[in-house]
Amino acid sequence: MLGELLKPEIQEMIRAGNLKALHQVLVEWEPPEIASLIEDLPSKDDVVILRLLPHDLATTTFEYLSPDKQQELIEALIQQKDYLADLLNALSPDDRTALLEELPGHLSQRLLNMLSTEEREVALRLLGYPEDSVGRLMTTDYVAVHPGWTVQQALDHIRRVGNDKETLNVIYVVDDKRHLVDDLRIRSLLLADPAATLADLMDERFISLRARDDQETAIQVFRDYDRVALPVTDTAGILLGIVTIDDVMDVAEEEATEDIQKIGGVEALDDPYIDTPLFTLVQKRAKWLVVLFLGEMFYTTAMGHFEDEIARAVVLTLFIPLIISSGGNSGSQAATLIIRALSIGEITLRDWWRVMRREVFSGLALGAILGLIGILRVVVGEAVFATYGPHWLPLAMVVGISLMGVVICGTLAGSMLPFIMKRLGADPATSSAPFVATLADVTGLVIYFTAAALLLSGTLL
Amino acid sequence: MLGELLKPEIQEMIRAGNLKALHQVLVEWEPPEIASLIEDLPSKDDVVILRLLPHDLATTTFEYLSPDKQQELIEALIQQKDYLADLLNALSPDDRTALLEELPGHLSQRLLNMLSTEEREVALRLLGYPEDSVGRLMTTDYVAVHPGWTVQQALDHIRRVGNDKETLNVIYVVDDKRHLVDDLRIRSLLLADPAATLADLMDERFISLRARDDQETAIQVFRDYDRVALPVTDTAGILLGIVTIDDVMDVAEEEATEDIQKIGGVEALDDPYIDTPLFTLVQKRAKWLVVLFLGEMFYTTAMGHFEDEIARAVVLTLFIPLIISSGGNSGSQAATLIIRALSIGEITLRDWWRVMRREVFSGLALGAILGLIGILRVVVGEAVFATYGPHWLPLAMVVGISLMGVVICGTLAGSMLPFIMKRLGADPATSSAPFVATLADVTGLVIYFTAAALLLSGTLL
Repeated sequence: MLGELLKPEIQEMIRAGNLKALHQVLVEWEPPEIASLIEDLPSKDDVVILRLLPHDLATTTFEYLSPDKQQELIEALIQQKDYLADLLNALSPDDRTALLEELPGHLSQRLLNMLSTEEREVALRLLGYPEDSVGRLMTTDYVAVHPGWTVQQALDHIRRVGNDKETLNVIYVVDDKRHLVDDLRIRSLLLADPAATLADLMDERFISLRARDDQETAIQVFRDYDRVALPVTDTAGILLGIVTIDDVMDVAEEEATEDIQKIGGVEALDDPYIDTPLFTLVQKRAKWLVVLFLGEMFYTTAMGHFEDEIARAVVLTLFIPLIISSGGNSGSQAATLIIRALSIGEITLRDWWRVMRREVFSGLALGAILGLIGILRVVVGEAVFATYGPHWLPLAMVVGISLMGVVICGTLAGSMLPFIMKRLGADPATSSAPFVATLADVTGLVIYFTAAALLLSGTLL
Repeated sequence: MLGELLKPEIQEMIRAGNLKALHQVLVEWEPPEIASLIEDLPSKDDVVILRLLPHDLATTTFEYLSPDKQQELIEALIQQKDYLADLLNALSPDDRTALLEELPGHLSQRLLNMLSTEEREVALRLLGYPEDSVGRLMTTDYVAVHPGWTVQQALDHIRRVGNDKETLNVIYVVDDKRHLVDDLRIRSLLLADPAATLADLMDERFISLRARDDQETAIQVFRDYDRVALPVTDTAGILLGIVTIDDVMDVAEEEATEDIQKIGGVEALDDPYIDTPLFTLVQKRAKWLVVLFLGEMFYTTAMGHFEDEIARAVVLTLFIPLIISSGGNSGSQAATLIIRALSIGEITLRDWWRVMRREVFSGLALGAILGLIGILRVVVGEAVFATYGPHWLPLAMVVGISLMGVVICGTLAGSMLPFIMKRLGADPATSSAPFVATLADVTGLVIYFTAAALLLSGTLL
């Protein structure tokens, strides 16, 4: 973006005290561009830029900044109480909620005290909704109209109050008790006869969210109905606020990132990768690595029981990695597919039986393919290099059967664990690929040595 | 959704020939709800429902259907040429492009011939843009205005032509040669004095996409600038069409799903998991499983070289799974984090050196943690169960050092491979977690046996 490219020139202008020219440059930029510039600037310079901006532009730009930068700026501005109070009172309620929930408690308390009585009441109400609920994404800056108004009255009303509203793309019809009775896209007003009443345009069909709904529900509804804003009501149907698509898109992206990180066996990061402090990064990764490591230790112990067999037939060890990794890989694949399908609502809990049948078949097919290649490997190895001695045929059978077994087990474990997690109320993504892989490892080993004990006793063993 | 709940009643009404009542029910529903009902109905019933709907509702409902269902319906309606032609001509250009690109060639040719000259020209032009380009998401149904018009003239124009347009939330100002000169949100028209000219409202700052841009670029721009629609121009700045956020949100979701599937070691599926034919599902998974399996075979071969060492010290084999899985897990973590960060633009190619420094540190820290636990494991195992014989101390050292080494290698390989892939023009997600894990396996084995040969020769070996 522009900001990154011009950063040296901008810093040069700050050094030279050339603030008037800088002001002229910046008012031509889009808020996201100024935000990306501020993001990259060292402290002090960032405050200079923010304070140079006209009030409205400063507010919008501030809303585009990362939580870390917002906190930094607020700490730098804490003594300039009037400026900060103006800024805070002008922020959209939804962006302000996001800010207040990120800040340390003593700081958000101070900021709350800077708000006007009215804005403070809104802020406290929004903060009262559970984390990750629709209420936390909500803004109270919407346009409400009444069914008895004419289209012209509604348009006049919009002209009067619209300036501070988050969106004018949809307006909301409420009755005298603020019950939501319809939502009207601005297009229906623009296309209607100005003398018509709103009641003529209404179909009284609307989709609304509940303030305590999970944010994932909101993503789903926005996607299903292709809306740019949705109303939020309480259980009695009273209109509380609206949620706009830009906030929902951000949440959808974060959710996908969390899923991906969990599938990859990392505890979900709160910040972007590059902004996460190294210590946190190591901590979030170490947690799962250690859990998986301890899991593998059981495996080492299990293997200890087969030490005699291994000593008698070292050739068996050569196939261990092939077998356990096949179980792990097929398990990861299944887990990944199912976690994602659950997370975007393609399948739900009640589909478990349908998925199970598909996965039994997939497991059989994949197991047969890998089993055959494994057998081929032993046969060719013996034919060309005479590697495996006189008992190559039973060895080939053991390898083939074990591969088949481990792939089926891995596939089933990988596909069913996410359902079990979800049923237990946990996040399906917790049954991450490495977790399934470790589970498959242990199973694979047991299958392999059991098959070996059965088929090779009297020959190799 | 409604549709799923009422399916039995609806089918009952079709059976009873109670079509008038059914029509009354359906016109009260939202298009996505009717679409989800049709999606679940067997063929014939689905056609009945579609044909019952008034023209506009049928068109919108059709746009919400899955590609498979759309094709099924078209094949069922192919003899009812007039109805089908009406439907096709009324579809939004972007939805029609998506349909035509999914259908088999002979079918899309037949449909193209049913279009009016004008619509056919549009359809062919949109299909001319490369797959996964912005052009394929574009619709030509937008409102264009001229800078000399007054606000009132623009509003009158919207009232005249707005009905068929994809969105009225943003309108586009073009000069006489159709060069895009500005975009105006409808809010600025609604808030302005009706007598003002559009030129007064314009700031001549706008964000636009190019028709040949990658769709990922579009996602990024929508997210950065919080827009609900963006204009698309050619290289000369001529306005070609617009892209709306609902389509971009769908693409963003698909891209995330593809990333997740690739990270999980599955070739990306074209359809939702549950709609993918079993044969395709097995094929997409088998491809990677076999590649990884062949990779692991090299590993088996490598291990063959250490057969003597293994025979002399079977105790060494007990730690193989622990060591290779630690390399694999740490590699998966790093790959997952970096692939996602690259894909949503948090980091770019030029950040590779910064990432490398972070990952070297992370690898050292994680390696040290796992190495220490590994050493502890041997020490405790020896102290409590006297498992490892007189040479437990050098064995503990070998295990610790190998764990450290393999975690560092895994972390570095996992974090740098996505950059290399991207540099080579491939999708970073191709360096999937299982791929990195397999690579780490081989490395881990070499490190382990090399350390063993160095530290244990003369004692265990």
